[in-house]
Amino acid sequence: MFKLRLVPQEEKYFDFFNEMAGHIHASAELLAEMFARFDQAEEYVRRIKNLEHQCDDLTHTIVMKLNQTFITPIDREDIYALAGKLDDVIDLIDSAASHTIMYKVLEVTETARKQADVIVRATAEIVHAVAKIKTNSGLQQHFIEIHRLENEGDVLYREALAQLFDDHEDPLEVIKWKDLYETLERSIDKCEDVANVLEAIMLKNA
Amino acid sequence: MFKLRLVPQEEKYFDFFNEMAGHIHASAELLAEMFARFDQAEEYVRRIKNLEHQCDDLTHTIVMKLNQTFITPIDREDIYALAGKLDDVIDLIDSAASHTIMYKVLEVTETARKQADVIVRATAEIVHAVAKIKTNSGLQQHFIEIHRLENEGDVLYREALAQLFDDHEDPLEVIKWKDLYETLERSIDKCEDVANVLEAIMLKNA
Amino acid sequence: MFKLRLVPQEEKYFDFFNEMAGHIHASAELLAEMFARFDQAEEYVRRIKNLEHQCDDLTHTIVMKLNQTFITPIDREDIYALAGKLDDVIDLIDSAASHTIMYKVLEVTETARKQADVIVRATAEIVHAVAKIKTNSGLQQHFIEIHRLENEGDVLYREALAQLFDDHEDPLEVIKWKDLYETLERSIDKCEDVANVLEAIMLKNA
Repeated sequence: MFKLRLVPQEEKYFDFFNEMAGHIHASAELLAEMFARFDQAEEYVRRIKNLEHQCDDLTHTIVMKLNQTFITPIDREDIYALAGKLDDVIDLIDSAASHTIMYKVLEVTETARKQADVIVRATAEIVHAVAKIKTNSGLQQHFIEIHRLENEGDVLYREALAQLFDDHEDPLEVIKWKDLYETLERSIDKCEDVANVLEAIMLKNA
Repeated sequence: MFKLRLVPQEEKYFDFFNEMAGHIHASAELLAEMFARFDQAEEYVRRIKNLEHQCDDLTHTIVMKLNQTFITPIDREDIYALAGKLDDVIDLIDSAASHTIMYKVLEVTETARKQADVIVRATAEIVHAVAKIKTNSGLQQHFIEIHRLENEGDVLYREALAQLFDDHEDPLEVIKWKDLYETLERSIDKCEDVANVLEAIMLKNA
Repeated sequence: MFKLRLVPQEEKYFDFFNEMAGHIHASAELLAEMFARFDQAEEYVRRIKNLEHQCDDLTHTIVMKLNQTFITPIDREDIYALAGKLDDVIDLIDSAASHTIMYKVLEVTETARKQADVIVRATAEIVHAVAKIKTNSGLQQHFIEIHRLENEGDVLYREALAQLFDDHEDPLEVIKWKDLYETLERSIDKCEDVANVLEAIMLKNA
């Protein structure tokens, strides 16, 4: 009976994580759209920031619940780590979006668009993987794809940086784009961190 | 009897944390003073560095004690996390102070002064909150204020960055100030991390 | 008998960590060599990247084993932390190496060579310390030396940064070298993080 009483509460964690993953993927899609329709950038930044705030609230809710609950469906430290890593992804997506405004970027580069596209695909894998924690099956394929995307992102980043120092005469443009490419690259890296936490959870519960 | 023997040791953790919080707030006040009396910057950097070393020693002492103690007043991982996050705050305050010297900054901007002021107020909240862990009451108001200050800091940072790329012709000045604004902003972010760890401790012991 | 069955598995963790430490030190030596024979830089970058990939695989293996094993020779969270921190060191060494190529650096500065030399010595201390976890004796001297080297690195970094803004007229060179000095400095800082995790392990098992 004690177990039964806890079931709805256990389910809640999965719901929270699914919701977070959904917001993160949505923010990635908004970033990619923003880079395609850059004349409406400010509106996209506002919408991404809104999703980022919702993830902050979800993280806060998860941590609060975690500290008031004795029994959790997955280990406490894994719940904490997963919430933290998911939050890092959207923080960096939000940071990339808002910095393009702060830096008064006039035109988004082709490489930045490709990086945003990698983030869209990596966060889609996160959505699928998070949805499968509950049944703990079929996650492996998503980890493999996320690692592949991280390599794809790495190649893009290295090319972008090399090209940046080749092409640009204007140091201020170099400063801005170096920072933007790095932020986009770090978003992809954080998706890999999410995959690593999910893999640890999967193995423990195997 | 076993319990009684441990009581003085338990108290020690609270003393260590109060001492650390005090040093961090003192270093923030020195930073703000330094920014107001910038002709004496070197002396302030020296005094901040001294407090930073004392916090390093306190962190080390806490970790050592933690690994030799079986029973702790609050969870081991929380003690570890709190010491680490407090140390991050003073590391960044020290970094901001010493970089103004390394960068041979001639005059501190109004925005940097405002950021330092936010750090002073956020670290004051940390002092109050840390002092209340022991009784575990009245902490909430300090968390709310720290989150509000983090938002205040965020607005300052975004304005500073946008203005930096608007105003400056000299890329070297942009490089320096971008770095300084970021370091000050990160100090405030770390105060929020401290608040989050304290909130987790509060909830667990509620 | 249960204990006996686990012994070979316990030994495995020590083997993995010794192997990781060896790769990290080897990558540091390659970095220092690369800085001395910079005409062959690309070949060195390739070899360092190869070691970095091997450490990624080892970290992955450790985490996988960790999640399938009930009893471990040292605490799970310490195994996890140690693998993570060791991986951070080689990631930054790899990053420093590959960025010199991406930035099309023509000549390596004397300070960068000295920083690489500090990394070689700090990672040698890590090799020795990691080899001694098993017997848990004689580690202290290596921690002391790593902390001394971190201070040595700190002085180098601060001098390099001050000099960079004194000497250079070309902002693009400042951007590149600021980034390279920081990455090298962070490699040394991460060696200290490794020492701190090792010290925690040592104290717990004392």
